[in-house]
Amino acid sequence: MMEETEQVIHNDLTIINEGDAASPEGYIAGGVHVGLRRSKKDFGWLYSSVPANCAAVYTQNAYKAAPLQITKDSIDVTQQLSAIVINSAIANACTGERGIQDARLTRKLVSDKLQIPEYEVGVVSTGLIGEFLPMEKIKHGINQIDVSTNVNSSDFNESILTTDLVTKHTAVTISIENETITIGGTCKGSGMINPNMATMLGFMTTDANVDLEDLNLLLKEIVDETFNMITVDGDTSTNDMVILMANGKKLSNSLNKNHPEWNKFANAIKYVSQYLAKSIARDGEGATKLVKVTVSGGDSKQTVNKIAKTIVGSSLVKTAIHGGDPNFGRIITAIGYADSTISPYDVDVNLCGSKIVENGMAVPYDASKLKAKMERDTIDIDVKIGEEPFLATAFGCDLSYEYVRINALYRT
Amino acid sequence: MMEETEQVIHNDLTIINEGDAASPEGYIAGGVHVGLRRSKKDFGWLYSSVPANCAAVYTQNAYKAAPLQITKDSIDVTQQLSAIVINSAIANACTGERGIQDARLTRKLVSDKLQIPEYEVGVVSTGLIGEFLPMEKIKHGINQIDVSTNVNSSDFNESILTTDLVTKHTAVTISIENETITIGGTCKGSGMINPNMATMLGFMTTDANVDLEDLNLLLKEIVDETFNMITVDGDTSTNDMVILMANGKKLSNSLNKNHPEWNKFANAIKYVSQYLAKSIARDGEGATKLVKVTVSGGDSKQTVNKIAKTIVGSSLVKTAIHGGDPNFGRIITAIGYADSTISPYDVDVNLCGSKIVENGMAVPYDASKLKAKMERDTIDIDVKIGEEPFLATAFGCDLSYEYVRINALYRT
Repeated sequence: MMEETEQVIHNDLTIINEGDAASPEGYIAGGVHVGLRRSKKDFGWLYSSVPANCAAVYTQNAYKAAPLQITKDSIDVTQQLSAIVINSAIANACTGERGIQDARLTRKLVSDKLQIPEYEVGVVSTGLIGEFLPMEKIKHGINQIDVSTNVNSSDFNESILTTDLVTKHTAVTISIENETITIGGTCKGSGMINPNMATMLGFMTTDANVDLEDLNLLLKEIVDETFNMITVDGDTSTNDMVILMANGKKLSNSLNKNHPEWNKFANAIKYVSQYLAKSIARDGEGATKLVKVTVSGGDSKQTVNKIAKTIVGSSLVKTAIHGGDPNFGRIITAIGYADSTISPYDVDVNLCGSKIVENGMAVPYDASKLKAKMERDTIDIDVKIGEEPFLATAFGCDLSYEYVRINALYRT
Repeated sequence: MMEETEQVIHNDLTIINEGDAASPEGYIAGGVHVGLRRSKKDFGWLYSSVPANCAAVYTQNAYKAAPLQITKDSIDVTQQLSAIVINSAIANACTGERGIQDARLTRKLVSDKLQIPEYEVGVVSTGLIGEFLPMEKIKHGINQIDVSTNVNSSDFNESILTTDLVTKHTAVTISIENETITIGGTCKGSGMINPNMATMLGFMTTDANVDLEDLNLLLKEIVDETFNMITVDGDTSTNDMVILMANGKKLSNSLNKNHPEWNKFANAIKYVSQYLAKSIARDGEGATKLVKVTVSGGDSKQTVNKIAKTIVGSSLVKTAIHGGDPNFGRIITAIGYADSTISPYDVDVNLCGSKIVENGMAVPYDASKLKAKMERDTIDIDVKIGEEPFLATAFGCDLSYEYVRINALYRT
């Protein structure tokens, strides 16, 4: 099912205008301002009216934030969630036993408020590391949770942001067994974004009835192809997770990988995941351009993944793109240090559709034409390293003055 | 011999004011302007009046520039060099067979000019990748090589620079068997600098008589502790090398590792290597501060090396330092993704001498006092990850607007 072209992914699915994680049937989302941030909404909730089968992928950082541990604890026990609450501004990471207690108390209070089992509640935080949650403000937020109406899901989309400039969400429908299935998603970026989870939170939902084991396998596979293939600055955070909920409001029998329409379902999940991942890369801190790197012809998935991620993560490639400079030398250098076992003189590179390297050597190109192409919003780098079958695509962004400004001054 | 404190390294050695690779007896260096750069000197030479035993370490990039291949060819055949010529501005990398022919012709012409065997000549280039050398200009440079006088070694130090702002060189003397031995070095940085060699060239020289095998082992060991422990932007170049020459003008019997004063010699080489490596980090593109990260208490050299390099290479740590922000969360995050197997709550972090993390948690500190300390020219980050014996030190620099400006506009 992992065809790489968006063409294929698009087949059979219909995009919902302004869709998000609350689009599938039975989900309600909202958000309020509780004073963690100056004025933007900073506390949100995502609720399913029935317990949803739940798969999750967590950060690989040795420091796992307290809320992540509590969410994992819930999912490990019930493998279902009915509600997730999220606060931005403070990550509740590196906060020791008190942080755990705060996250556990949050879970308990949400459980009381919504009259759902404690282990069907997930707790998520994002923001500054090392500060304690002001629990009075969190309690104030919990008291305001309203799951009677879904008109304010855009408040949820906003409430989870940190330095993100825009909300990030989408939803699609597909038809399975002649029922309309909806798949939605909302996420946040925007710095500390790197393969293997970064400060990014992704919430994907569906109203389909899905086998729990296959839901888990599918999420892991898709995260590896999407969220784990983006990079902004190479830093991997303490709080990241991607959660996929399936509440079974649609389809009487649960979907599993042997179902004839499983691939259609999997492609729809992948489309949403890919869309969210790309939107994170495009809104990377200080980004002015989306960079898409495709590496083909490798003899293993690992090789092409590594090369694609290395190119898209190279500070020198990123600054060259920011400057509109077709600097093929930095691309070739990144290829060469990503994998010292490649055949250097089998490599071709296309930049924005123009061939700039053939057989590992520079080829003449129309510089003014290429410079003009580099004004585009999306920069495509296509690398062919041989004739073998493996292919990978990674997304990232340019490195600008603005990235430095944002991160030099984040706390002040 | 690998004691980590500079205290120990300094023992027994005397620093030569304005010393460089031409300071030891029998070496002559110079440089001229041949028109590869607008006005700065761009072609240099380093000459030994007798063939010098030679050890070298090369880039690990899959793309190895033509001059590097020719130099390796020479050293592999004779294990000695009498002369090295270097041009800046053009790297002669990714230039295929023509690049190899140009580097080989350069070697031949230098051999003819100086009347030395062809395989005692090294050829080095640094600069833009993918352009051919203008051989007429190179020939013009070769014709001007003058090994009759050593008054112009500062021209050599300048001729090898690219975006470096300052020349980088030092020399020391030690006493071995009651003879005065001199060890000198000259190098260049300044972007594309990462562990495992980057666009950096290092030339170290000594007039001692040194056993070839032990010279090679020593260079490898010292490069791993010094040049391989610096990072500017994480990019590893096609042209890097470090060469260590020992011409035997001093000491009738060759020094080897069983000699009672070997450690004194090795420490002096390490001092020079460390000094050059630090000077590269301090002059990283756009750098305003030197960052020194020490990680102690690990159970293997690999672990402490990895963590130290990850911290010093993190864009988020680098921008925080640029902004004078004691952002401990980014340091702890970098530790956590460098090695997911550490015990997160055994970690202590000191920033500029102030404890900011104890047992993996934030501790209160005097923010205004710490901010003032962060105005310093050198930022020290000391991390203790446990009670085991391994220790590593890495050097880097902050990430500034200027880095982006330099690299967005390098070609134009």
